[in-house]
Amino acid sequence: MPATTQAHPLDVLRRRGSEKWTAHPADVLPLFVAEMDYPLAPAVVAALHEAVDRGDAGYAEASGGGAKEAFAAYAERAWGWSPDPAGMRTATDVSVVIVEALRRLTAPGDGVVITPPVYPPFFELVPEAGAAVVEVPLLDDGTTYRLDLDGIEAALASGAARGVLLCHPHNPLGLVHDRADLVALSEVVARHGGFVVSDEIHAPLTHTGRTFTPYLTVSDAARAHGVAAESGSKAFNLAGLKCALVVTADGPMADLVRGLPEEMTGRTGHLGVIATREGFAHGLDWLDGTVAAIEHNADLLGALLADRLPQVGYRRPGASYLAWLDLSALGWGDDPAARILAEARVALTSGPDFGRQGAGFARLNLACAPEVLTEAVDRIARLAARG
Amino acid sequence: MPATTQAHPLDVLRRRGSEKWTAHPADVLPLFVAEMDYPLAPAVVAALHEAVDRGDAGYAEASGGGAKEAFAAYAERAWGWSPDPAGMRTATDVSVVIVEALRRLTAPGDGVVITPPVYPPFFELVPEAGAAVVEVPLLDDGTTYRLDLDGIEAALASGAARGVLLCHPHNPLGLVHDRADLVALSEVVARHGGFVVSDEIHAPLTHTGRTFTPYLTVSDAARAHGVAAESGSKAFNLAGLKCALVVTADGPMADLVRGLPEEMTGRTGHLGVIATREGFAHGLDWLDGTVAAIEHNADLLGALLADRLPQVGYRRPGASYLAWLDLSALGWGDDPAARILAEARVALTSGPDFGRQGAGFARLNLACAPEVLTEAVDRIARLAARG
Repeated sequence: MPATTQAHPLDVLRRRGSEKWTAHPADVLPLFVAEMDYPLAPAVVAALHEAVDRGDAGYAEASGGGAKEAFAAYAERAWGWSPDPAGMRTATDVSVVIVEALRRLTAPGDGVVITPPVYPPFFELVPEAGAAVVEVPLLDDGTTYRLDLDGIEAALASGAARGVLLCHPHNPLGLVHDRADLVALSEVVARHGGFVVSDEIHAPLTHTGRTFTPYLTVSDAARAHGVAAESGSKAFNLAGLKCALVVTADGPMADLVRGLPEEMTGRTGHLGVIATREGFAHGLDWLDGTVAAIEHNADLLGALLADRLPQVGYRRPGASYLAWLDLSALGWGDDPAARILAEARVALTSGPDFGRQGAGFARLNLACAPEVLTEAVDRIARLAARG
Repeated sequence: MPATTQAHPLDVLRRRGSEKWTAHPADVLPLFVAEMDYPLAPAVVAALHEAVDRGDAGYAEASGGGAKEAFAAYAERAWGWSPDPAGMRTATDVSVVIVEALRRLTAPGDGVVITPPVYPPFFELVPEAGAAVVEVPLLDDGTTYRLDLDGIEAALASGAARGVLLCHPHNPLGLVHDRADLVALSEVVARHGGFVVSDEIHAPLTHTGRTFTPYLTVSDAARAHGVAAESGSKAFNLAGLKCALVVTADGPMADLVRGLPEEMTGRTGHLGVIATREGFAHGLDWLDGTVAAIEHNADLLGALLADRLPQVGYRRPGASYLAWLDLSALGWGDDPAARILAEARVALTSGPDFGRQGAGFARLNLACAPEVLTEAVDRIARLAARG
């Protein structure tokens, strides 16, 4: 049983220069952008210090610096998946993998399905690639969300969309798509000659007892039409070190990877490659302890809300550290995060950024100390009590 | 007088994981890709260690993390130029600045002038942006290279090209373009409603007694049609940390910068931002010592060649650490670097990669220990003696 990872104290965090700890004044508790407040994994810390001491800050190695092989070994251990490093390339980050893949999979103006409420940059990355967003919202039966397979099929069948940008696990819901739904998605997409780009950046943070199924494992069809965007950047909190992997199976999508601009590799962060390799190879005890800390906070948030803000809707995520809060009962309008920032001094991510389904919602990042999470809920509860 | 920077010993360098130190077996002296063998600047080392210890590996700050202001202060001190941080954005690297600028400055198929022999990725970055390469080779009077302003004017006047991708200082020649030529270029470009994207990545490594003139300082016309790509990545050897700056003056080009994808900032390396800021703010003694070491080696290379390989053509660079060697008299064909790698076990960059003007040439990276440079020339001289 690994030790539960403990967050850095606030005085250390406030010295961080990253977006989370600089965007707001010091009286704000920042629970917005997807960075974690934990120390880096010890293996990552050691490798980065050594790299700095030997001046190892030049170009990332063209062959991937061991990150591809370390990810493949991790994927085998965690998910029983052995992707071939020959079908991978390193890239700056998952957003670059998505844009560069879509540039090759779509013609200008082609539609790409996204499934809101969803990670806000998806609304920008599709047009950056020259394609057009086609929204097929997730279905919600009041208890669980799932993919609207009929809606996706209709979009593909009508020609409105050529493929799907999948968020798996789904941000902001922490929804781990069922294997059965993914198999069905692959059949729908194959039927219409489409593609899937599957952003799996949060997958290594899947919670205990939940099963993450990599898209490229669900069927031969998925392997033929799927591109996966993988990274250690969420699992090991390396967003600023700029390393992700585009992963494909043998066949046409591996050809797509081989046709990506050679410059893409040089745009990968070399320290990101080192940290990703060390994390996946030697950071798994730390990762287990970090998932335990996240699960603890996911439970704590449920208890705090039940106690102090019972009118707030919250479904416990099955992966990662993002909580999608239905704040509509508070009567704070479409964007309650704006009032919460201004008056409770807690920074959440605005729900409407995730699509129109996000009206009245906000996303809370719970990868922080339990005391910080408690204080944040207390601040919001005091604001709600004032009315 | 700062201490001359000393290279790391080979046993430390061979533990680096970057491209320079992993692409070839250990019996090869790698003098190819543009990484330096020196330790990082002390201020950079300290800041990176501190960032790692506080887990500061999240997203680069949207406002630039102080890198823009540090560059502006450096530019004022070094070149008397005070670019306004309001006209800057951070980006992954200079290649991204070039591609993203060209995407906005050209329509599909528009021509962009490049001036070979020139940095090989220029031949790829222009088509990556959807434009077409138009070659206007540098003029060479046998002593000095310079821009072919008449050739550039003809390309713009005919409509064959819409603008110019300038390499300044020019890689692989270490050519620091004269202010008069830059003024004339700005007039030519303005006359035809064109643009200039000026890659100034090597500028902080301009040698003693030479004057680097930032393109945006040469005229109002240059400020109206110019985009500069600036970075600390060559000066402070931070290529793998992924931080560059797009710099513009007030006016239409500042609007272009404001219209770049918001995601570009998030694709910047956070440790790159920190290192860039610390380098420009607190690494200038180290930088002076590094330029001194480079100048020493540029002189040493001239002496070694005169002594051991007098048939090799070499013009001392005026900036940076790249030497463009005319090896054609050795009779080793268009790509002497191939034979030198295979038989002398020294890795240079192949001349033909820089354009057809590079036949018979190779580029040598002299940012190494003098002993390594000496050994490399000895190895090549021994191969030449064997005939």
